Amino acid sequence: MTSLADRVVASGVVAAPVVPARGARALALGEYVIDPDGYWGRYQQLNASAIIDHCDAWLERDGTIDNFRLAALGPQAIVAGRQGREFADSDVYKLLEAMSWEQGRVLTERRERRIRELTALVAQVQEADGYLSTAYGRPGQAARYSDLAMGHELYCYGHLFQAAVARLRCHGHDQLTEVALKAADHVCERFGPGTGEDGYCGHPEIELGLIELARATGIGRYRDQAAVFLKRRGYRRLKPFFDSAYFQDELPVRQATVARGHAVRAVYLAAAATDLAVDTADGELLDIMVTQWRNTVAARTYITGGMGSRREDEAFGEDYELPADVAYSETCAGVGAIQWSWRLALATGEAAYTDLVERILYNVVATSPSADGHSFFYSNPLALRSPGCPPKADAISTRAVSSLRAPWFEVSCCPPNVARTLASLGSYMGWVDGHTVALTQYAGGRLDVQLPGGGAAQAVVSTAYPTSGQVVIDVAPTAGPAWTLKLRVPAWSTGASLSVDGGPAQTVQPGWAEVPGLGAQPTAIKLDLAVQPRFTYADPRIDSARGCVAVECGPVVYCLESPDVDGDPFQVVVDTGVAPVPTHGGITLHGLIAVPAGSDWPYPPAPVASPGIGTEIHLIPYNTWGHRGPSTMTVWLRHD
Amino acid sequence: MTSLADRVVASGVVAAPVVPARGARALALGEYVIDPDGYWGRYQQLNASAIIDHCDAWLERDGTIDNFRLAALGPQAIVAGRQGREFADSDVYKLLEAMSWEQGRVLTERRERRIRELTALVAQVQEADGYLSTAYGRPGQAARYSDLAMGHELYCYGHLFQAAVARLRCHGHDQLTEVALKAADHVCERFGPGTGEDGYCGHPEIELGLIELARATGIGRYRDQAAVFLKRRGYRRLKPFFDSAYFQDELPVRQATVARGHAVRAVYLAAAATDLAVDTADGELLDIMVTQWRNTVAARTYITGGMGSRREDEAFGEDYELPADVAYSETCAGVGAIQWSWRLALATGEAAYTDLVERILYNVVATSPSADGHSFFYSNPLALRSPGCPPKADAISTRAVSSLRAPWFEVSCCPPNVARTLASLGSYMGWVDGHTVALTQYAGGRLDVQLPGGGAAQAVVSTAYPTSGQVVIDVAPTAGPAWTLKLRVPAWSTGASLSVDGGPAQTVQPGWAEVPGLGAQPTAIKLDLAVQPRFTYADPRIDSARGCVAVECGPVVYCLESPDVDGDPFQVVVDTGVAPVPTHGGITLHGLIAVPAGSDWPYPPAPVASPGIGTEIHLIPYNTWGHRGPSTMTVWLRHD
Repeated sequence: MTSLADRVVASGVVAAPVVPARGARALALGEYVIDPDGYWGRYQQLNASAIIDHCDAWLERDGTIDNFRLAALGPQAIVAGRQGREFADSDVYKLLEAMSWEQGRVLTERRERRIRELTALVAQVQEADGYLSTAYGRPGQAARYSDLAMGHELYCYGHLFQAAVARLRCHGHDQLTEVALKAADHVCERFGPGTGEDGYCGHPEIELGLIELARATGIGRYRDQAAVFLKRRGYRRLKPFFDSAYFQDELPVRQATVARGHAVRAVYLAAAATDLAVDTADGELLDIMVTQWRNTVAARTYITGGMGSRREDEAFGEDYELPADVAYSETCAGVGAIQWSWRLALATGEAAYTDLVERILYNVVATSPSADGHSFFYSNPLALRSPGCPPKADAISTRAVSSLRAPWFEVSCCPPNVARTLASLGSYMGWVDGHTVALTQYAGGRLDVQLPGGGAAQAVVSTAYPTSGQVVIDVAPTAGPAWTLKLRVPAWSTGASLSVDGGPAQTVQPGWAEVPGLGAQPTAIKLDLAVQPRFTYADPRIDSARGCVAVECGPVVYCLESPDVDGDPFQVVVDTGVAPVPTHGGITLHGLIAVPAGSDWPYPPAPVASPGIGTEIHLIPYNTWGHRGPSTMTVWLRHD
Repeated sequence: MTSLADRVVASGVVAAPVVPARGARALALGEYVIDPDGYWGRYQQLNASAIIDHCDAWLERDGTIDNFRLAALGPQAIVAGRQGREFADSDVYKLLEAMSWEQGRVLTERRERRIRELTALVAQVQEADGYLSTAYGRPGQAARYSDLAMGHELYCYGHLFQAAVARLRCHGHDQLTEVALKAADHVCERFGPGTGEDGYCGHPEIELGLIELARATGIGRYRDQAAVFLKRRGYRRLKPFFDSAYFQDELPVRQATVARGHAVRAVYLAAAATDLAVDTADGELLDIMVTQWRNTVAARTYITGGMGSRREDEAFGEDYELPADVAYSETCAGVGAIQWSWRLALATGEAAYTDLVERILYNVVATSPSADGHSFFYSNPLALRSPGCPPKADAISTRAVSSLRAPWFEVSCCPPNVARTLASLGSYMGWVDGHTVALTQYAGGRLDVQLPGGGAAQAVVSTAYPTSGQVVIDVAPTAGPAWTLKLRVPAWSTGASLSVDGGPAQTVQPGWAEVPGLGAQPTAIKLDLAVQPRFTYADPRIDSARGCVAVECGPVVYCLESPDVDGDPFQVVVDTGVAPVPTHGGITLHGLIAVPAGSDWPYPPAPVASPGIGTEIHLIPYNTWGHRGPSTMTVWLRHD
């Protein structure tokens, strides 16, 4: 089969999840091909060989796909036999999206057959007027749209549209496009202005789907419908099953200053509002979304990039309410925060947004799957005080925190969300704006982008990042106008340097390092991001981190896990006078393990002394914890 | 009407909630009459004049009492019209218990009528075989005992039995006794050994009720049935709607080493197990309950004495998982922890248990009601980062945290739990064991206890405690054998002293100060508990308190509330070199309000410096926060 990059160039279709109507655009999958044996290449291989099929198998096993088969048989069959929550259909759509991006990356006939099979199943369930749900509308089921707050019908369409866009951009118009367009038309007819229906969905997501569908098809009314949904929200009109802030319904999006409520809802909504601001050149709305992002990152985000601190309602907490041990930090909220940040990165050209994307990729997305791709973390706490019970090895788990990844969950949104993110990861490697190409993430690979005016940007990127900070970019000579390469220098990178064609290494500051005038001749660029272990502190308003250090190395957050310490990880006191040293894939510190006197009451009249014996402390990357059986773990370590 | 104390003496009935079959017994209500104008006297007055009637009015308003009227009308009426959760009946029983103790304290004809009215209503609903519930068993309702895990039928009986015991001990045998005995017999016949029914209730409480009913009536099989329920629990046989630990069903009570799961369930269960250990002289079980209490207090209890840190499942967290801002610390869990601790105090004679009772009384029970007794805190967090929305002023609130007390809740267990505790508070003032009387709490009042052998212990206690540490006990001369007075010296009291009849003040250590040989002549005892403001620190494993101090004065925990600080309470840094000083009903500290540089990312490479301007910091008692409108608040303050 032909390479995707060729087809992209030929068709003008950009095989990327986010293609704004104006400004910078993300690289298409074929424009940055990640080396299969590098850090992210291995994750993509794992996704292709295990994660996607694992999701497919479990959606068969838990009845989610059968729901479509039953619905196709008729109302009696589905009413009697439907399994799963009201939003279960969406997981099939997320799987279809993951498969479609994966087909855009590496075509296989087996996957092509499966996409067609699932698409046909979905199409069979769609009603004549475009309505599509296995959960509502039949005799014996609740009426269509009878519970917009918690019913999730529109939410499911959003994922359907994103799947259809993935398929359309990687494969072309097919039955999935037809299904999506029919559903989108139905939504506009049912919920559009002048229809008398002023509802909106309790779980934002359709807005994202509608806007991207508009971008992929040129059908503007889908974007207009997204704008209508966004505008209706914020006046407390959703049935208050939870409080209105849970749904981001207590304040119009233009009046909010920070993310709040259910975290996945919040970041999906913010991503959609950012899309709308960009496509409609609404600078005011874009500024609002920038402010919301800044405030959210400044006070409501974990060092891992994780968002949503509360298990209760899976929600954002107040500013600085960032507990480590009861952190929720849902994997899906990480995926959504990447989507929001990436849209702001494209809209503003600022590097800070992709700093956060990188942080979330390494410390949330990479943390979720097990090494074999057959189990996942749903929530990502920064500390576990007790190893707890292992999840059932071959059964459905609740979302509750454990020290072990689980194969599947009662609500299993996270595994397919990881799958679609890994399959489309090439697109997050950089963006193009005119004759400028920016690299936003560093993974070994091949860049090949057609530029306006017949030029091209072609380069081979070689790096062992994030183990090493050395990134070598060999730019190939190309015809056409000169182009500029922008290289992201992360905020943590102090002492980064850049050398062009063997010239002297010049210090570069966090933000962007630019190399203009490329293309006329081969150019060898060496970027050194000065990756080395470092201590990181926290705002003292963050209880879980006060008086503590974390250890980071490049974008990777480290942790202390109980198998690596002869004592209680929570009694380790780090000597910050001794610099952390990389060792054996981990980092070694100096410190002691405190042995406090036993106490009947933990509130003494004087500070608790921490006598102990000096020892070496061995940390591992946070994203690799929980691989050795039940354990305890902490990211934040007390310091002297 | 005659005084209760007289009737107690005459009848041999002890008007107290807890009357163990052996060992020390609590003072009866009439044996310690609290001065109405002292600290707790004012709370008892508030309870009598406002809280009890408020609960009654709201239970009428929210339909809980109407449920009994509807049930009396017949199945159709109650099935069509029942309001509230499945356990709502229990709130009527808790109200009846509160009213009954209050009648034991101060008789009024109005309350007597109301007790009889409510009792008659309840009696009308009881079925011929003793079964009693407005929620189950009728055509159109779920079958009796069809959901032991969450149905709460047995739980409701437990509260019915406690109400009947209160009535029996303060008034005598009446219709409520009849209802309770009929229900208890029904429970024994339905769930007793050999019935083939091996169930038990998802919410422990019936065990407490059965044991006290056995004590009050001498009917031993009620205690045996409680033992049977306790023995069945712990083998994961309850339907796992939540995890088994939520119900304390993952481990038999004899194998557990610490309280865990839903906090109210946990402490009610522990109190019942302690009762059983005492009545059956089961030293092994008593030791187990002592260990559970010690481990719970050492690592799972807030400085306020509050228990149950998790909003999710209203549950205990892991050891040292004691967040301040998202603390749940339900008022009912405080009441239950008092019940458990009090039983251990009577069983062991150790002062530490009543230290905790005191702490919970001053910092949880006293915190809940508003000054007018018409609104309540359900949860008692130790910090509030955002004032949030005020609860509805004249409507039912959820349990969620706010900075303002709410008049009523969807689940309104807490207000009547406060009411029954305040009404019976006299009984917690001390205990009697042979010729020893111990004062476990300090409130101005009159002690009058008949002792074995025709003696009596009579004294007048005068004190402004806890504002002052001076407690004066004027012992009256009495006939009969000499008696010993034990005075609790709290663990926080360093430098306490005791003086007898004007003699030199002798230093006394935390635990008990004893004065023997009383009765032959008037004796003037002066105890000085050296109440003065002090800094308190915390085990560094408690995230919320690490690097912080709290300020306590006697048993009272203080806090900083936003109306008292010209800035963010969470940015206050206390200078612990300057001693805290009492001022204007509060405490003044020296410190500064940090003004950190604004930051885009709260995880910097070096500790955050806290420049600021020196200032005085004014604290108020934690139990008085939230009286001035929406605010933020913190108990733990950063220190230099």
